Amino acid sequence: MRTKKYMLSESQMPTAWYNIVADMPNKPQPPLDPKTGKPITEEAMCRIFGEELVRQEFSTERYIEIPEQVQELYKIWRPTPVVRAYNLERALDTPAKIYFKNEGTSPAGSHKPNTAIPQAYYNAKQGIKYLATETGGGQWGSAMALACQYFNLDLRVYMVKVSCQQKPYRKLLMNAWGANVIPSPSDTTKAGRDVLAADPECAGNLGIAISEAVESALAHGEDTRYCLGSVMNHVLLHQTVIGEEALRQMEMAGDEPDVVIGCFGGGSNFAGIGFPFLRRNLTEGKKTRVVAVEPESCPKLTRGEFFYDYGDTAGMTPMMPMYTLGHKFQPTAIHAGGLRYHGAGSIVSQLYKDGLIEAVAVPQLETFAAGMLFANSEGIIPAPESTHAIAVAVREAQRAKEEGVQKTILFNLSGNGMIDLYAYEQYFAGKLQDGSLSDEEIRQAIENSKLRVNNR
Amino acid sequence: MRTKKYMLSESQMPTAWYNIVADMPNKPQPPLDPKTGKPITEEAMCRIFGEELVRQEFSTERYIEIPEQVQELYKIWRPTPVVRAYNLERALDTPAKIYFKNEGTSPAGSHKPNTAIPQAYYNAKQGIKYLATETGGGQWGSAMALACQYFNLDLRVYMVKVSCQQKPYRKLLMNAWGANVIPSPSDTTKAGRDVLAADPECAGNLGIAISEAVESALAHGEDTRYCLGSVMNHVLLHQTVIGEEALRQMEMAGDEPDVVIGCFGGGSNFAGIGFPFLRRNLTEGKKTRVVAVEPESCPKLTRGEFFYDYGDTAGMTPMMPMYTLGHKFQPTAIHAGGLRYHGAGSIVSQLYKDGLIEAVAVPQLETFAAGMLFANSEGIIPAPESTHAIAVAVREAQRAKEEGVQKTILFNLSGNGMIDLYAYEQYFAGKLQDGSLSDEEIRQAIENSKLRVNNR
Repeated sequence: MRTKKYMLSESQMPTAWYNIVADMPNKPQPPLDPKTGKPITEEAMCRIFGEELVRQEFSTERYIEIPEQVQELYKIWRPTPVVRAYNLERALDTPAKIYFKNEGTSPAGSHKPNTAIPQAYYNAKQGIKYLATETGGGQWGSAMALACQYFNLDLRVYMVKVSCQQKPYRKLLMNAWGANVIPSPSDTTKAGRDVLAADPECAGNLGIAISEAVESALAHGEDTRYCLGSVMNHVLLHQTVIGEEALRQMEMAGDEPDVVIGCFGGGSNFAGIGFPFLRRNLTEGKKTRVVAVEPESCPKLTRGEFFYDYGDTAGMTPMMPMYTLGHKFQPTAIHAGGLRYHGAGSIVSQLYKDGLIEAVAVPQLETFAAGMLFANSEGIIPAPESTHAIAVAVREAQRAKEEGVQKTILFNLSGNGMIDLYAYEQYFAGKLQDGSLSDEEIRQAIENSKLRVNNR
Repeated sequence: MRTKKYMLSESQMPTAWYNIVADMPNKPQPPLDPKTGKPITEEAMCRIFGEELVRQEFSTERYIEIPEQVQELYKIWRPTPVVRAYNLERALDTPAKIYFKNEGTSPAGSHKPNTAIPQAYYNAKQGIKYLATETGGGQWGSAMALACQYFNLDLRVYMVKVSCQQKPYRKLLMNAWGANVIPSPSDTTKAGRDVLAADPECAGNLGIAISEAVESALAHGEDTRYCLGSVMNHVLLHQTVIGEEALRQMEMAGDEPDVVIGCFGGGSNFAGIGFPFLRRNLTEGKKTRVVAVEPESCPKLTRGEFFYDYGDTAGMTPMMPMYTLGHKFQPTAIHAGGLRYHGAGSIVSQLYKDGLIEAVAVPQLETFAAGMLFANSEGIIPAPESTHAIAVAVREAQRAKEEGVQKTILFNLSGNGMIDLYAYEQYFAGKLQDGSLSDEEIRQAIENSKLRVNNR
């Protein structure tokens, strides 16, 4: 029985976020205004998002300083540990070394506060009083609720209706932190009412909830903005604090990862762990593999297409250049709610297009099996999202054994699964399925979405 | 907005537990064999508990070394932070400084693994294959399930039936870590069957669950032992790792607590934070106040009587000298499941009798109000048990303000409340009550229990 965790002191914490756009050989293409088909202006974006966040969205500076107050609040739980998973290695009988970065130690239980806190900070600084957002699995909504507490901001969260029912604790957590949670689709927005008119029993999805949150924020007035927990450049930027720490910690461990793995929904935890390692590939000629892991039921990178698509179901957001299954794609009800999103952000999509990152799709049952193996060996219940990264770490370790080679693996444990235990119950009861998709299903979702985009 | 957390490095972690018995002016009286009325022998105890644990139970050595393997496993989440609660101080507008030790960062979410791990370790080392235990709120059961995973021990947990229903996530957590959870009272033991015969609808309580777990362990054979998460001397001993760390951390902070506060159920987290500070009172002439906080609905220290009583409902355990409401006392269904126990352990009882520690009873609604204040200012959802310590920290801070004096407060946050959010839901819905007791109710419970003890 061995265990080793690598901890930074607070004085070793990063003081800047890393903006990978500065080092990309091909910059991401700009978001387009759906009305004009032209690149959207910063001014137009500022009606939706906080000003400083929009500036970051368009920035090409390599490093952006983390405001002192954000650094201060990060210290509530940061720096987070990097752990050598000796017990998992032993369980797999592998020559590979496995490390994980544990982002599940935040008060909200996931990496989401890394961006929730700066988003609340910048909005509050600008004088904004109200924020609206949406949440699927509830990780983002609860992180944002936590952050809004620190800055006395009122928060309204549109939560996918089926998640409200399946994850009552997540809703309670948001309530405990003072947020107003509205099951989506709701009758509080036109987008919600339209959906309900067509299907009164609609269980909701992230695309609809985004539409509702954006509409609600725009309707509420000048002191209100919208905020988002993934996909956007500024969100990915804030999450790089994960990888910046991990770089220093791997150095402490005297080790060098051959492969860095993150689960992939909209890209926030993946970018967080991956981009600082990619910087070394792009600027120092290193060759670290950086792997995004998506569910087989939502395989936008491995089986989607690259085109300009909406970020939401109703088509209210700017159009973004992305690998997507189409904004009309309706993912099946897998338990990794945070990975059920139809598209990848523009930076990750461009990196993937340029062959600078890898992607793998994993079936749900394999991810839960890997999650249990991890829980039983390392003693931490992983979030269903994070089990995707674990599953690929396990595959890599098994391959190292088969090939008889040494290998160093680092994955990001994006969150703990304490509030997701109902999912494990269903897994134990044999009620979960992989939710894999046929080529025809994917083709249809993409065609339908393209049709809508082209006829806008 | 400020935050400051004091972290030890792993090399600064304590390597020995502190046994307060060595320094007590009056040693605790011995447990008695209920059959003979004479002090129970170590040999008799060894039929129930692991050998090394029994040795520790009777030890008068001041320090007991923490085995290397236990130190290793502690490092999975230890050392835990001491945090200066600046935001809570500001919310209270108090001149007092408030610090808390955060034991909610363990994989099980509470301080319980501090003793679960050594208990599993010593039993495994002795060749034991199976363990039986009970759990009320589920914190202890899940910690023990975690610990048993590390040492390949099979675990059976008798979980109070009403908790199984109220806290399904706790049960799932134990299942995820491989434990067999049986709702108590059950038909797997004579103790359980007797209770069910008298009342088939019985919701269970900790006393009954202990009876079932002890009976089950004794019946199962030579490779099986029983284990307990509080009350006993060896359990309190293991928890002193909390206070030993906190001593060093307060030194780092350059501060000296005037008062150290822990919630009080069977005494484990209270002793954990308090005993190392008491050592300085006993051996160095310091005068730190050490305060145990119990619920008004289970006020064994503040309103119980000191006599030899059973640890369980069925009267299967040795008789212990303790402040107790009587083993027949049935606490009301407050949400701090870990504090719903009729008696205090023999060490804490002796210390209280000798005026070396203080005790306060707090009503449930005040504790939840304090818990919400803490959640909203410090961003951590506290376990319902821990809200008792917070409530008294708040009282102390308010008193400092009224009196216009400087004061330094340290409390133990024994666990986080992520899996206890249903309790907050009930609090929000106005469904909780204080559960305070009349003098007559207490008198009757004590008299009934004494009658049973005397007629054994």
